[in-house]
Amino acid sequence: MAEPSGHGSNGRPGEDSLIARFFAPLAGEGGLGLKDDAACLSPRPGHDLVLTADALVESVHFLPEDAPASIARKALGVNVSDLAAKGAEPVGFLLSLALPEAWTEEWLAAFASGLGQASRDFSCPLLGGDTVKASGGLTLSVTALGEVPAGTMVRRTNARVGDVICVTGTIGDAALGLKLRRAPAWAGNLSPEERAHLADRYLHPQPRHRLARAVREHAHAAMDVSDGLAGDLAKMMRASGVSAIVEAKTVPLSPAARKAVAADPGLFDLAVTGGDDYEILCTLPEKNLDSFVKEADSVGVMVSAIGRVVDGHEAAVFRMQGAERRYDAGSFSHF
Amino acid sequence: MAEPSGHGSNGRPGEDSLIARFFAPLAGEGGLGLKDDAACLSPRPGHDLVLTADALVESVHFLPEDAPASIARKALGVNVSDLAAKGAEPVGFLLSLALPEAWTEEWLAAFASGLGQASRDFSCPLLGGDTVKASGGLTLSVTALGEVPAGTMVRRTNARVGDVICVTGTIGDAALGLKLRRAPAWAGNLSPEERAHLADRYLHPQPRHRLARAVREHAHAAMDVSDGLAGDLAKMMRASGVSAIVEAKTVPLSPAARKAVAADPGLFDLAVTGGDDYEILCTLPEKNLDSFVKEADSVGVMVSAIGRVVDGHEAAVFRMQGAERRYDAGSFSHF
Repeated sequence: MAEPSGHGSNGRPGEDSLIARFFAPLAGEGGLGLKDDAACLSPRPGHDLVLTADALVESVHFLPEDAPASIARKALGVNVSDLAAKGAEPVGFLLSLALPEAWTEEWLAAFASGLGQASRDFSCPLLGGDTVKASGGLTLSVTALGEVPAGTMVRRTNARVGDVICVTGTIGDAALGLKLRRAPAWAGNLSPEERAHLADRYLHPQPRHRLARAVREHAHAAMDVSDGLAGDLAKMMRASGVSAIVEAKTVPLSPAARKAVAADPGLFDLAVTGGDDYEILCTLPEKNLDSFVKEADSVGVMVSAIGRVVDGHEAAVFRMQGAERRYDAGSFSHF
Repeated sequence: MAEPSGHGSNGRPGEDSLIARFFAPLAGEGGLGLKDDAACLSPRPGHDLVLTADALVESVHFLPEDAPASIARKALGVNVSDLAAKGAEPVGFLLSLALPEAWTEEWLAAFASGLGQASRDFSCPLLGGDTVKASGGLTLSVTALGEVPAGTMVRRTNARVGDVICVTGTIGDAALGLKLRRAPAWAGNLSPEERAHLADRYLHPQPRHRLARAVREHAHAAMDVSDGLAGDLAKMMRASGVSAIVEAKTVPLSPAARKAVAADPGLFDLAVTGGDDYEILCTLPEKNLDSFVKEADSVGVMVSAIGRVVDGHEAAVFRMQGAERRYDAGSFSHF
């Protein structure tokens, strides 16, 4: 905006000035410099748009003491993760920001800077949004848009009997990282680097956007793991009308998580039910497995085969050392 | 979802069950029954997508005692109003809902019912969203998508010297309706019907989506009036590098607003700076005026010509009974 409308009644910048200073520099082509009332996007011919929205609330999805850049990165990252799991390349996003009474220009500058960095890292430019005053803590809502060649969005509902179940990266780090903040006894078994790894995985989800194409080309069904592996797997199996057998020992744990579970074996349950992983869970025919793993490797993403899709309607079974375990309420619920 | 995941820890429905019961029935085709992690939209060839997001916060954009159906209608309506002002027909919307601790199933059922009614009235189906627990009062964020034939989105920045300035409906009713709640002295001059009219205009914005095509075909520049006529006009003129002269007596007031202003002449300033009108403000060449008024009339929308675009960079002048008035800080600011 050529002439921002100046300062609000409290001496801090008014809304227009705030948008011009902090957010307009992040705007992609369709965002029209955030100078209009809406964004304008010319969809690529022959492509479908994939749309997802996620809200983040203070003290639920992040902690008030978290760095503003981390909060920004997480808000965008969790949405880009959803797109990736659908096989979609990011197109852009809109941000609704409800700022608490006590916001400062320093906080907002750091937030915008982190958002800009994440936006560049994920190739997902800002298209528009809204900034208002919150009635409680900070609340953010991101709507992200992605695109896929027409008809190729990967559904949650299409897992088939015989498919191999795969998951990217490692599972449980974020849940353990959050738990670490309460300084549990097992933390003493971890090195400072291992503790930092877990803490970072909670703060900074790493959406697997570079894997979108491989997911699209190889997977029958996919979703991102945000509410815990066991629960999200159960959701995908239920939506597809099938069941699953998972070999617990093949669930990929980081060295730090492995050490934590060795110190307190009960933490394995936390790892597979805890949430905030933002990895991709997918099923694919065995014949596609090698190519999928190879393509993932070429974009720096580890893929682990953790089980099989089987006939049935029960919750997935986790086989562990001869025993079997079902996580019936294995999914984080906000309510 | 075939088998909703049951009830949360407090005996109220869990998130999946809540989505299945309250929101899935509102889903449009691209929403995939809200059973997947994302919506999938096949854009109409030859069309651009228009995107807008607006957040609504309790005690700022609505009052906690407002009916849930009214809050839902307003959240969608203010976004559809933005689309209409850009000349865009609604395609669908995503909703992020942060519910306060004390939400009830009754509240949510009424909210969803109002949202469904608004969605049908505005031809704008639900595509997806997110439901989380708020850390304070209710916060909603809607991202709405519309479409226009490629290249025809109406900008805020394109007002031209000589254009006639038009506004739809009536101005100031919502601001007066909100003020009414404090039982001001002038309320006594109004009939119960007139008071009800003003109150209703605050609660229930009437987006001018039926006018989208006429705006697209006739207007040079347009935006919706949400932060006060004077301030929004100033924004549009500034963005277009021009100025404006408004004949105050032609600013359309409802009979109720007219009576209020007669009782307390200072209320005219409130009417033109108060916000929440959700009318369309646009500029168009004089030769288009008759057709625009006629087409608006055919979809039941009144249009008033209130002034002219002129050369200059100063705030718009409101001419009233020989005097001139500039509203320099005439726009509601959240900050």
